[in-house]
Amino acid sequence: VNARSMKPGPLPERPVIAVVGAGAVGGYYGLRLARAGFEVRFLLRGDYEAVVSNGWRVRSVAGDFDMPPGSTRVFRDPSAIGRADLVVVTLKATANEDLGRLVGPLVGEGTAILTLQNGLGSEETLAEQFGAERVMGGLAFVCINRTAPGVIEHLSHGLVKLGDFVGGDTPRARQVSGWFRAAGIECEVLKSVAEGRWEKLVWNIPFNGLGALLDAPTDRLVGCDAGLRLVRGLMDEVVRIAASAGVSLPPDLPEFHIRRTVKMGAYQTSMQIDRRMGRPLEIEAILGRPLKIAQINSIDAPLLGMLYDLLSIVNIGKDIRVP
Amino acid sequence: VNARSMKPGPLPERPVIAVVGAGAVGGYYGLRLARAGFEVRFLLRGDYEAVVSNGWRVRSVAGDFDMPPGSTRVFRDPSAIGRADLVVVTLKATANEDLGRLVGPLVGEGTAILTLQNGLGSEETLAEQFGAERVMGGLAFVCINRTAPGVIEHLSHGLVKLGDFVGGDTPRARQVSGWFRAAGIECEVLKSVAEGRWEKLVWNIPFNGLGALLDAPTDRLVGCDAGLRLVRGLMDEVVRIAASAGVSLPPDLPEFHIRRTVKMGAYQTSMQIDRRMGRPLEIEAILGRPLKIAQINSIDAPLLGMLYDLLSIVNIGKDIRVP
Repeated sequence: VNARSMKPGPLPERPVIAVVGAGAVGGYYGLRLARAGFEVRFLLRGDYEAVVSNGWRVRSVAGDFDMPPGSTRVFRDPSAIGRADLVVVTLKATANEDLGRLVGPLVGEGTAILTLQNGLGSEETLAEQFGAERVMGGLAFVCINRTAPGVIEHLSHGLVKLGDFVGGDTPRARQVSGWFRAAGIECEVLKSVAEGRWEKLVWNIPFNGLGALLDAPTDRLVGCDAGLRLVRGLMDEVVRIAASAGVSLPPDLPEFHIRRTVKMGAYQTSMQIDRRMGRPLEIEAILGRPLKIAQINSIDAPLLGMLYDLLSIVNIGKDIRVP
Repeated sequence: VNARSMKPGPLPERPVIAVVGAGAVGGYYGLRLARAGFEVRFLLRGDYEAVVSNGWRVRSVAGDFDMPPGSTRVFRDPSAIGRADLVVVTLKATANEDLGRLVGPLVGEGTAILTLQNGLGSEETLAEQFGAERVMGGLAFVCINRTAPGVIEHLSHGLVKLGDFVGGDTPRARQVSGWFRAAGIECEVLKSVAEGRWEKLVWNIPFNGLGALLDAPTDRLVGCDAGLRLVRGLMDEVVRIAASAGVSLPPDLPEFHIRRTVKMGAYQTSMQIDRRMGRPLEIEAILGRPLKIAQINSIDAPLLGMLYDLLSIVNIGKDIRVP
């Protein structure tokens, strides 16, 4: 198989789906697909032993469910999984240097690779290694935490938006979207993955970034003038950077995001939780790459630059304290 | 006595000095003056009982010393102190609503009031209440912490720069400076208190502000590219705001401050310690007033604005957690 040459055609009707990085997001969507009868194979690392012994427990606003030990196919070694028709990548973006090693063994002739990771750059990294035609990009709009190995707490939302990296709304994107919907997951097809990513970044940059910096859930950020000023200032910068990258976002997007966030209550973003848990922060994917684009396109983004530098120091400090 | 009419003349040769707010800075300088034979009366609040019972312990790079119980005159009630010739104010700027009540009873016909508080605005507040002619302003360049009631740890430096609020380098300023030097305190007379304050703010805004926000001592801020970028960016904004307020600072001041800070090692600023101790932060005096001046004078200061908003959220959060 030449991993770099592939025509994006329809995937099989009964696909093998592999989930690489089955934390909160990968675990949740993968388990929903498995419960709907899809053949799903999970690649786990740190949580492997616990899931083999205890299975999964999902506490979800869409209905709790447990998956007992042995009811799902879990793997520790990617080469034991075999070829997949669809690889769903939900690794932390900080682990992207492992993408080739973890995804490579799963890629066969017609394999598509869908990244649901945060931030910018994952499609590009996958495209470099496996060819752009294989790559699909998606966004998970979901409040979800992995509270212990194999234990997932799904607090609200759940929408997935996905599309082909090249072409956006393609027959393949509609096919994969249909599988998600068949599994009870709200799913839309994106006309442009890039547009979807920037739209989400307008939310992620302030709420993940400030949330991690201040150890503050969303309600503290939208609950005071200082927080709203910071959120709006950052959102405005991201909208301008997106425009410089050719992505024109709706002018009312920042206020739409803010209204939606007020309704979410006290949500702790993944980056806030990562900071609390002493894990590396997804700074480069969520803030660093947009900032780099601002610099290349000469867009003034002082708040994003400052947030990036502040979080870099937080990250250094944590690495020192938690080796 | 009309508290608002007074000619700034020479003070008595054997003055009564009152120290209002005898934490680290007030305690240290007041005790040095007392040891040199000056009549010093200390106004204490929370630490009164401990000092009455145990006296003071000073661990200082300039030489340790203890002041046993009864060896200093300490008061809890300002009206018991009597009139002072010089009132040295070292309250936290966050307690400035108490200035009138605490300083008023000490003010007689010839009383001068020297504020060694951080940030901007204390001279103006005192001038409004007691008349500008009484007011002197000073800056303490000292690394010093109050580690327990009556226990002061003096880590490095110690220079005081002071001047008259109106006139800067006056005979009265030289007289007070002479007292400090007679007590072994390095002391210079300022040509302009405003210039001295802005010069110190160029240091205080980044190191107090970022130090409190990130819970980071100075060495972490000058020890990485991200930290240096933030420090320099903030310093440049403060220099521009000072210029808009008519204070022209030397162009090499930021790099001078940075070199000096690298030599200081791992210093925890007072605002970092305040955050750790759950105390209110001196945000308004150190960041809010300079930011207000930037806004009035239409100076772009996005980093200072962001730091101010971030610290405001930290302050709110702490008030909630530590009632």
